[in-house]
Amino acid sequence: MAAGPITDVHARALLRRLFDAAVERAAPGEAVVPLLPTKPKGRCVVIGAGKASAAMAAAVDAEWSDIDLSGVVVTRDGYAVPAGRIEIIEASHPVPDHRSEDAARRILAAVEGLGPDDLVLALVSGGGSALMVMPGPGMTLADKQEVNRLLLASGATINEMNAVRKHLSAIKGGRLAAAAAPARVVSLVISDIPGDDPGAIASGPTVTDASTIDDVREILARRSISLPASAQAIIDSGAETPKPGEITEDIRMVAAPSLSLAHAAEVARAAGVNTLVLGDAIEGEAREAGIVMAGIARSIREHGVPVTAPAVLLSGGETTVTIGKDGAGRGGRNTEFQLALALALAGMDDIWALSCDTDGIDGTEDAAGSIIAPDTLERGQAQGLDARAFLGAHDSYTYFDALGDLVLTGPTMTNVNDFRAILVV
Amino acid sequence: MAAGPITDVHARALLRRLFDAAVERAAPGEAVVPLLPTKPKGRCVVIGAGKASAAMAAAVDAEWSDIDLSGVVVTRDGYAVPAGRIEIIEASHPVPDHRSEDAARRILAAVEGLGPDDLVLALVSGGGSALMVMPGPGMTLADKQEVNRLLLASGATINEMNAVRKHLSAIKGGRLAAAAAPARVVSLVISDIPGDDPGAIASGPTVTDASTIDDVREILARRSISLPASAQAIIDSGAETPKPGEITEDIRMVAAPSLSLAHAAEVARAAGVNTLVLGDAIEGEAREAGIVMAGIARSIREHGVPVTAPAVLLSGGETTVTIGKDGAGRGGRNTEFQLALALALAGMDDIWALSCDTDGIDGTEDAAGSIIAPDTLERGQAQGLDARAFLGAHDSYTYFDALGDLVLTGPTMTNVNDFRAILVV
Repeated sequence: MAAGPITDVHARALLRRLFDAAVERAAPGEAVVPLLPTKPKGRCVVIGAGKASAAMAAAVDAEWSDIDLSGVVVTRDGYAVPAGRIEIIEASHPVPDHRSEDAARRILAAVEGLGPDDLVLALVSGGGSALMVMPGPGMTLADKQEVNRLLLASGATINEMNAVRKHLSAIKGGRLAAAAAPARVVSLVISDIPGDDPGAIASGPTVTDASTIDDVREILARRSISLPASAQAIIDSGAETPKPGEITEDIRMVAAPSLSLAHAAEVARAAGVNTLVLGDAIEGEAREAGIVMAGIARSIREHGVPVTAPAVLLSGGETTVTIGKDGAGRGGRNTEFQLALALALAGMDDIWALSCDTDGIDGTEDAAGSIIAPDTLERGQAQGLDARAFLGAHDSYTYFDALGDLVLTGPTMTNVNDFRAILVV
Repeated sequence: MAAGPITDVHARALLRRLFDAAVERAAPGEAVVPLLPTKPKGRCVVIGAGKASAAMAAAVDAEWSDIDLSGVVVTRDGYAVPAGRIEIIEASHPVPDHRSEDAARRILAAVEGLGPDDLVLALVSGGGSALMVMPGPGMTLADKQEVNRLLLASGATINEMNAVRKHLSAIKGGRLAAAAAPARVVSLVISDIPGDDPGAIASGPTVTDASTIDDVREILARRSISLPASAQAIIDSGAETPKPGEITEDIRMVAAPSLSLAHAAEVARAAGVNTLVLGDAIEGEAREAGIVMAGIARSIREHGVPVTAPAVLLSGGETTVTIGKDGAGRGGRNTEFQLALALALAGMDDIWALSCDTDGIDGTEDAAGSIIAPDTLERGQAQGLDARAFLGAHDSYTYFDALGDLVLTGPTMTNVNDFRAILVV
């Protein structure tokens, strides 16, 4: 840091600047343009699904104002933005409804009948799996929901569930790209998951599938899953998802948690602060992750390990909040993480932290997350608020609201998962 | 690493080598000798308390065979080793018994009547607080236990509890050193806590106390604690613990979690592996800490962040295991951490890990901890063992015992808390 002790105002401003940098790096408009391919000789059809896909569509429409362009993109309720010639429709998230099926039908129709000079731009982002749903031939939405229920109850891993789902979908696992042939397909992808596997984002509608129908049969047998008859018929038909070489794959990563974390780290370094990025894959119960992170921050403070102060510890990923039978107050995983972190730090006088969802919505609240400071618990006590009781009641939003320490951004129209920054000065 | 892919045998051997290096660095015998002060003109009285204190005493007795030396040191049942002229006695841990009080009485008697040319060597290590107990004037052991119960129920922080306890003890918070005056007192300390605050190890019998009797009165009022009459009388007497300048303080850190982690990191680097030490202060529920660590390991594997593979992630500290109302199977916090880590990694084919208590005893079992490999879950399945069910039943010891993957060392006679190493190749 520059000369002189860091003040509370400085620390809070720096943390907010790092979060803003992470969100900016994920802004669909700015990031999409440099990744656009050469303009097609023929038509351009823009399709897509996901929370950040409408914002990407608006940028594409503005940038390519001089060509024959049309399309349809589905996003989450509340995430629509005007996108000129590209129609934006909304559907339900996280539980799909009939609008998700309508969206899938319209998107498949939009890529039909194209020629080799035409270009399909697929704008794919997190949430797209629920927003664009097309069960395979003969299956209903209810059948699909029953399959999901069976998979969840079976103990199958996420990879196993995805293999089954892709083979039972008419649009996922590369089948949207197959439907667009012989047009060229370029996918512009915003990742909201650790590792950025494009096949796992929105169930990879334009990405070849590494799993096979034989894998699916083996999984169903091993997990003792009896599919509904309509789903079993699809498996029995032996219909395979597209494999490498069968569709063209041109996947361009527009934004990703790892890219946003790296950008925030650059901003921190430019401000004279040492940085350590713990990666994009932090999971686990939010309150326990807060305790673990407090331990790392404490070591920075007391030993200069793993980095010497002033330092900021950055991480992404997605923690969880498990609600007991007593139910819960108001709060998302980021504010719960923060309250646990504040308690574990217990007023250490040189640690500040921010934890926010980059989509601007922490759980179901109107805040992105919160900021904690060395005096967080003390200011709570002065108001008669027992931080431990609020954490016990999963009422972290209320706690930070009372302190005026919520971070409010509104929907950011993008999503690269959670962003955490712990500053030790 | 050297050329060629790392094998399972190599990975396991490297992890075990790192653990052995951490324990070696904490071996009381080797580490004590270079820290001994100049020999006294007068007598040397060796006193001490803690799990590693008998082993330190044995080293002192052997090294200073040519001077007038005697003493008494208390250690945990099972941790006694012969120490020549220094008598080793055993007491109960973690719950003190009458032997803890006898030990304190004998230790105080041993340092009485010394002169300025005499030297008191205080051998202090983790566990000493319970092994050496001397309630203040008028208090019984039962009164002291009642005070502990009240403190725990009050929501007081660990610092607040220590302030109260030190002022109610006749031996802690520097009072042992005060009793030894005018002899010179040198403390040889093995830390088992994050940050290595000597005042917090065994409640700092030879360390000046930063808290005051006024702090104690304020804490008791704020936490609404009504002390037993005997304890209240001590507070009312206004008797203060020793403050800086009132006793000589010469504290020498023989071993500490941070020193053992740094030594293991050197050994790993010498083996050609990148290292990142996350510090000595990792706390939180063991199974959730396993999930958080899995996320960091995953980022190393997928992004080379925060370090590039081959890399080892080292950490210390002490996680906890919360047992539900269904009770528990066999296992300590290290094997529970490992089982959760294996599940969160779900067979990633290039990650191995070791987690062990450096004292050789993970919880109440006979193992120090365990090793996991990419095929841990698969080998469990082949035996019909459901790792998730074992974790749910807190039966991690049984799981790793069946796989032959426990790490068995026996008591190491030292204790620098837990040691974790996650290797990503």
